[in-house]
Amino acid sequence: MKILITGGTGFIGSRLARELLLRGALNGRGVERLVLADQFPAPEAAADIVRDPRVEVRVGPLLAQCEAFRGDRFDGVFHLASAVSGECEADFDLGLRSNLDSTRALLDALRGAGNLPRFVFSSSVAVFGPDASNPMPDRVRDDTLPTPQTSYGTQKLICEHLVSDYTRKGYIDGRSARLMTVTVRPGKPNRAASSFFSGIIREPLAGIEAILPVDPSVSHPVSSPARTVAGLIAVFEATQQQMGGRAALNLPALNVKVSEMLDALEAVAGKATRALVRQQPDPTIAGIVAGWSRGALAARAERLGLQPEAQFADIILQYIADHPQAVTESARAAAAAYERTRSK
Amino acid sequence: MKILITGGTGFIGSRLARELLLRGALNGRGVERLVLADQFPAPEAAADIVRDPRVEVRVGPLLAQCEAFRGDRFDGVFHLASAVSGECEADFDLGLRSNLDSTRALLDALRGAGNLPRFVFSSSVAVFGPDASNPMPDRVRDDTLPTPQTSYGTQKLICEHLVSDYTRKGYIDGRSARLMTVTVRPGKPNRAASSFFSGIIREPLAGIEAILPVDPSVSHPVSSPARTVAGLIAVFEATQQQMGGRAALNLPALNVKVSEMLDALEAVAGKATRALVRQQPDPTIAGIVAGWSRGALAARAERLGLQPEAQFADIILQYIADHPQAVTESARAAAAAYERTRSK
Repeated sequence: MKILITGGTGFIGSRLARELLLRGALNGRGVERLVLADQFPAPEAAADIVRDPRVEVRVGPLLAQCEAFRGDRFDGVFHLASAVSGECEADFDLGLRSNLDSTRALLDALRGAGNLPRFVFSSSVAVFGPDASNPMPDRVRDDTLPTPQTSYGTQKLICEHLVSDYTRKGYIDGRSARLMTVTVRPGKPNRAASSFFSGIIREPLAGIEAILPVDPSVSHPVSSPARTVAGLIAVFEATQQQMGGRAALNLPALNVKVSEMLDALEAVAGKATRALVRQQPDPTIAGIVAGWSRGALAARAERLGLQPEAQFADIILQYIADHPQAVTESARAAAAAYERTRSK
Repeated sequence: MKILITGGTGFIGSRLARELLLRGALNGRGVERLVLADQFPAPEAAADIVRDPRVEVRVGPLLAQCEAFRGDRFDGVFHLASAVSGECEADFDLGLRSNLDSTRALLDALRGAGNLPRFVFSSSVAVFGPDASNPMPDRVRDDTLPTPQTSYGTQKLICEHLVSDYTRKGYIDGRSARLMTVTVRPGKPNRAASSFFSGIIREPLAGIEAILPVDPSVSHPVSSPARTVAGLIAVFEATQQQMGGRAALNLPALNVKVSEMLDALEAVAGKATRALVRQQPDPTIAGIVAGWSRGALAARAERLGLQPEAQFADIILQYIADHPQAVTESARAAAAAYERTRSK
């Protein structure tokens, strides 16, 4: 199989690539070639992936790369490349170009290739939002009416419908998975309005102060990087029948309050670590987050065998295990003690 | 006020234009200039409109005309131009270009003009459709989850979300009205899969045989041309608060079975007229129609004071009154007798 991952050198993209190389197969067919298309070259943390002889990295804007995909005739595509929510609010044209035009160009290239590739679109829980005639339920479901309140969410929703229609027409075998907010992301904050959901864990674990721009009572559906990657693969491998219709599905969420995230941080890594989180309201971010889901249910993903994490402490422990060099010695020691206590 | 109607020389467009010229005002402000943009010149039937000194007709593809709109700084826009459902199924690229790209270019031109025009997008009940995980309710509502099953419906839905986001960003003051199937359309059949909903009334009234391509038990939400135009104007004149949120709304529908339409035809115009309808199943059209709504409710439009017709006979009588030259003398006589009987 020849697989394309757009946004392939990004955080989720490279993690997905590593998992695919490790498995070596999708749906029982070998992964012989893995093309990672991204506007940025692979970071040092992805050096192991780039060294793999099956991998080819192509650097450049997705929109400019699409035409060439026609000749590649990929068997499978994970379309992860996207401008993030904060960027799209700040620069309307950038969002339309990066999220809508690029997806359309990608779909047209795959249609032109003519070999009906399997296609997973990474949509987002940001498709949901409240409006005056459509208050948001406490938990958004697969079939909740999406009325997005950001350009990012609007563009994701529009692409879901494009994916459905290209699939209905027989141009691709597409499906859309709505990612929950992925936490804990390593590295530096990005311009996603959701960036703090990682920052308030990652920075304190590194011994650095973190800003919490919203009220601790804010509730939100989150997922770990590992479960998110597992979800993308399961959605890829599912038949259309198992998907249960063409509409997009929610990936599983751990529905958690910010205060519960901080309680878990204290339980895992100690009082001093938690004390590094400083509340400093940011009206812009709080405004965007107020339009987001407080929680999500994922009945159709569960039918594919996917489950959310049981508790937020597991997500913190996963981050510490994956990125020990980014965590202070004292926090690592506290986490080890926490795990020993818990396993008793 | 300077008003633009795209698709302005078409059936609904010219009828809307005539109504605006007659009223002379929208929201209490005079209509000083009315630009009708269309790919076709005005037909003979719209000669009265073209003669009006307030009217300017611009002929050419909408996509090519949009850039010029920037300098026009319209106060209000009715965006009716669209490729129809049958065309979009037959030619995927045509649908994307005519419905999606043109709307995007129009929105960008209005955004570029910078004067926040009021904007009505004519969406369609075709945004609704059944899929495996989302069976369609017997009556679709304003907040029914749209999972369109045609490219036309997909493109209309995508444009609804673009209109919402351009409005949220403050680039236009937009709203979307989902038109029901408009019947009785005068003239010749068009390539809309819904064309027969007019043909089975119009042709027999003209003494010509009509083909019914679906089962008479098919139920569908319809509206007369006059109520449709009234709906577009009411949605234009409503404040965002009266609209009750940014999401699109359904225009009122008379939910009627094909058999009830034919019964009304017989009641109004006689047995011989009805006998001109010949059932001849067309699997392509039946397939498209099977994915359509069987009926619709329009709670938010009702709050704007809009109501559907009480019965289908009223729609037939409206057509006969509007187009007496297209109706046989015997059918006109039967209709006159029917009206006399009914008014007793």
